[in-house]
Formats: sequence, structure tokens, C-alpha cells
Amino acid sequence: MGTSVVAVSDTPSIDAIRAAADRLQGKVVRTPMLEAAALSESIGRRVLVKAETLQRTGSFKIRGALTFLAMLDEESRRRGVVAYSSGNHAQGVAAAAFDFGVAATIVMPRTAPAIKVRRTRGWGAEVVLFDPATEDRRSIAGAIAEKSGATVVPPYDHPWSITGQASLGLEMVGECVARGLDDPAVLVPTGGGGLCAGVALALSEALPSARVFAVEPAGFDDHRLSLAAGERVPAPEGAVSICDALLSPIPGEVTFPINQRLLAGGIAVTDDEVRRSMRHAFEELKLVVEPGGAVGLAAALAGKVEGEGPVLVVLSGGNVDVETLAREVAAVG
Amino acid sequence: MGTSVVAVSDTPSIDAIRAAADRLQGKVVRTPMLEAAALSESIGRRVLVKAETLQRTGSFKIRGALTFLAMLDEESRRRGVVAYSSGNHAQGVAAAAFDFGVAATIVMPRTAPAIKVRRTRGWGAEVVLFDPATEDRRSIAGAIAEKSGATVVPPYDHPWSITGQASLGLEMVGECVARGLDDPAVLVPTGGGGLCAGVALALSEALPSARVFAVEPAGFDDHRLSLAAGERVPAPEGAVSICDALLSPIPGEVTFPINQRLLAGGIAVTDDEVRRSMRHAFEELKLVVEPGGAVGLAAALAGKVEGEGPVLVVLSGGNVDVETLAREVAAVG
Repeated sequence: MGTSVVAVSDTPSIDAIRAAADRLQGKVVRTPMLEAAALSESIGRRVLVKAETLQRTGSFKIRGALTFLAMLDEESRRRGVVAYSSGNHAQGVAAAAFDFGVAATIVMPRTAPAIKVRRTRGWGAEVVLFDPATEDRRSIAGAIAEKSGATVVPPYDHPWSITGQASLGLEMVGECVARGLDDPAVLVPTGGGGLCAGVALALSEALPSARVFAVEPAGFDDHRLSLAAGERVPAPEGAVSICDALLSPIPGEVTFPINQRLLAGGIAVTDDEVRRSMRHAFEELKLVVEPGGAVGLAAALAGKVEGEGPVLVVLSGGNVDVETLAREVAAVG
Repeated sequence: MGTSVVAVSDTPSIDAIRAAADRLQGKVVRTPMLEAAALSESIGRRVLVKAETLQRTGSFKIRGALTFLAMLDEESRRRGVVAYSSGNHAQGVAAAAFDFGVAATIVMPRTAPAIKVRRTRGWGAEVVLFDPATEDRRSIAGAIAEKSGATVVPPYDHPWSITGQASLGLEMVGECVARGLDDPAVLVPTGGGGLCAGVALALSEALPSARVFAVEPAGFDDHRLSLAAGERVPAPEGAVSICDALLSPIPGEVTFPINQRLLAGGIAVTDDEVRRSMRHAFEELKLVVEPGGAVGLAAALAGKVEGEGPVLVVLSGGNVDVETLAREVAAVG
């Protein structure tokens, strides 16, 4: 009879966010914010990238996972954790569980990129593969939790996760202050909305002139649609995208009220825009960025960001094989 | 009757090095030093990488080029600069000339990677291509300098260049102090020896427990051979390597006395070791590293670094096409 999902419904406070950031010091990388000189030149606005690709596990997800595990009571933690994920949350939870010395079981689709499965196992987690066409990952994770007493670490829709992801926003605030950057447009790759909500919360308190945009793959632009509709609506079914990390069909129940209150809008980018952005990141920034991690850069590169001030782009993940990246960018030589 | 090469023969002093570093503040990126967790785990030693790939122009060369131009008297500077280079020094000089608002002519082999030629032109430099099989780049650059009165900016064998490259060493010292890292082995990709000499000078003054190694492609390991011989000797002719940035045949006249006095040794790595290292950088570090920039990482990955303490690896350049990187690493899947 495990706690299948810990239920907490409050919006994280700035104090909770600062406490989480303090707790993460030394456990996560304070990832660099780098000038994107060529892009700045080409679009006529100063562009900087927050290279969260250089984070432990190759994405921001470890921030939320470590925070979730830190908040969990010790007895629950001892019973282990379960997560379902196509890959980045998987690695984040696996690494966080490794740090805390607890067992982790990760439910991953057979279609997940090989690099993500390999790296999740690399942290000592047990990986359970399932067929996304016929099986439901939540049910599988729920059944494992039920049987073992382990706690499900949700991928985004939980205040503790959001609190952890917000630490990335606080780091950006620090960089903006150090560089004298006012009223930036901030582009956040968005799936379920956890990173976006965390970043928006941190900025709303500490750099309120910032305007935060959720950037999504076209066809999975449920935040853009929901922000316009004023309520959570799903993207139409049947879409496909190369952005394996951002395929969630509808904004989260916990994340959306935060994002609805704080976001300046949503932006959708096509797969070809994402491919061009991965090539740009490779050749100009010398950074490996996975498709889902590159949507913010794609929006900047495609001139889809309204306004004229500086643009801060979060590169949220870099877990992509050489072969996959080369194949995808070949199409946009 | 231009000054074809400025002649100065002293070893840079630590004061000159600190002054150059101060001058470079805000003009170059203080590149991050990142934990290489997977590699540390696999070789049982703590490994960190200095990600100089994230430098402006994609390599360390801009440090020396900006320093050289700053030291040049204003009248010489006004007459412009000339450089010969397969690509990284080309971009460094082109960008430095752009910063100073002076004309740059860069002599590059037709065989240089396309990305390097394109990026050199991107800084507004005039690129003169030559056939490396039949023409001598020094003569071409010398003739251009003779005619225009421009100054040749040497690729490595000059105290001003070494003084600039040393700023990278000072940054590493700062990182080592901040992290409490004592007596590291420092691996420096080495062609003519300018970066190596600069880093060794900075460390010898500010972190004397560090042991600095020149790392070279097998067949172009003239530093390793010269250090063993106690004098400058060339590597045997006829070798080939994928490390286009590191093909200089013999240590520099200015750099070698410094390196001979300060280096702990030389290490040679094979092309396949370099390929594995580029794949490792891509998949584990999420960094794009060119062949020549990856030789230090290759040495660490191949277990070629004597001793047991921490290892600091300089990733000195990232100017490689997606297609080239993918083709090279395919051989070491």
C-alpha cells in the first residue's frame, strides 16, 4: 500500500524556491549562461543561452527529482521511488535516487532513445520497458508502487518538482543582474509545464520585468492553445514530432494555474525549425542539444519572439545520439 | 616594407600574463570548468574539463590574437594584420581584427574544414586560399605583409601570443583554488606549443603543484620526442592525422624553451582514441569538440595519464562540422 503519488497542491513560495536552490548547491551544476553571438547578430537582438544541457544527467530534470526526494519523509524514501518517463526525468530520478542511496524503478517506452535508456541504467536504476502503443505507463508505474510501497515521482505536476526546477530560474536571475539585463524575453521548452512554471515563479519574484514564453513543438502546443482558451485544453490528437521529451498532451493540473497567471504567451515551432536550431547549436554554440531541448532556440532563430529586447533561451536537455542528431540535421543542411 | 614578424624573445613574466588576462576581461569568455562525471567514474580519478570550445570563435586562439593586437603599436595596427592558419588561429585573428577595427587577411589551405573558412570570412576577414601540396603559407603571408605593410600575427611562436593563451591557465588556477584541487595533471592539446607554454607558465607561478602534459596526435608528437631528446626535433615525416589543428612538425623556437623547462611530459594519442573521445564528449559531456581539441580527453579516456590525482583536461577547440564529427565517430560506435 505505497503512497502512489504524494498530494500537495499549493503553488511554491519564493521562500520554498530559495530553500530548494540552497539545498541543491553542490549537487547540481550551476550551468553557464553563454552569449549566442552569431544568433544575436543575425536577429538583431542580444541572445543568451542557459546551457542546462551541461547539467548532471544532461537535462534540468535532476533539479526537480532531487528536490522531490529531499522533501519526501525518510520512511517513504527508504521504500524507494518509481517514475515513468521517455528519458530525461528517468535519468533525473535515477541520479537523485543514486545520490540518496534509494532504489529506483523507471518505466520507459521501448521507443525511448537508446542513449536515455542506457544512461538511466547507468545510475543503477531498474528500467522496465513497455509498449507505448498498447500499455499505459502510469498504470504500470502505479502497479509497481502499489506492490513495493515505493513513491511515484511525478514528471512535472507537483509543487516539489516545480520548486526544484525553479532553481534554474534563480540562476538566470543572478546572471541577468550580473550582466545588467533588463526585461528579457525568456524562452522555456515546455512539455507538461513544470520547468516553465518554476522559471516563471522565480522570475516573477526576482526579475518581474522578464516575460516568460512556453515554447512547444507544433502539434503539441497545448500550452499555447490553453493560454489562449483560458483553460487546460489538449492539443489535437495524431500529431508527431521529433521532440521526444515534449510530447505531453495537455498542461498539468498543478503547473497550468501558475503558467496561466505568469506566462506572456506560448510559441509553437516546427520540426524543421528544431532541426535548424540543433545544427545552429552544434556549429555556432558547440553545444549538443536534443530536439526537445532546442525548441526555445528554434523560436529565436525563426524570429518568432515578439518584442525587441534581449532574449534568454533555455537549452533544457542534450540527450541525443550522434547518429540521431546527424540524421535530423542532414535534412536542413 | 611592413614589419613582417614582430621580434620579441623574452619569456612572458607573470605580471605580463596577469595584465593580459585583465585586458581580456569582457572580451573573451571565462569558459566553464565542468566535472566529467562518467569519465571520473570509469577511470577512478576525478576529471574536469575546461570547455574552451565555448570560447568566442570556438577555440582558445582569440586569447593570443587579441593580446598580440593589443601589444602592437597603433601605427602597425592601422596597416592591418595577416595570418596563416588551417582555421582556429584564422578565426582568432579575424575576430580580434574585427574587435580592433583593422583589416585582416588570412591565408588558409584549400583543405581546411569548410566550417573554419566560413567562420573566418564571417568576421569580415579576406581569406586567401592556397594549395598546401605546392605552396608555402608562410611565403604567401610574408608576401602579403611585404606589399601592404601589414603585420604577420604568428600562430604560436611569439611571447605576446603565449601571454594571451596563458589567461586560460590563470582561469584554471582560479577554478582549482575554488574547488580545493591540488596537484592536478593538466592535459593540453599541443601543436606548436603556444597554449601549452602559456598554461604551464601560469600554473608554474600560481599552482606549482600542477603537472602539465603536452598531448599530441601520434605521428605529430614532436613535443614528446623533443622533451625526451632535450632539444627540438621534428616528428618523422609522412604521418597523417584527423587532428587538423595540431599538425605542426616541430616545437616552436620561443615555446620550446618554456615547455622544456616546465612540462611534466608528452603524451601521444591515436586517431581512434581521438574519435572515441569526440563521441564521449558528445554523448556524456554534451560538448562538440573537434579532433585536435579532443586529444587531451582522449589521453584521459585511454588511461594514458600517469599518477593518481585529479586530471584537468583542456578542450581547446570545437570547430567541426556535424557531418565530419558523425563520420569520424561512426568508426568507433
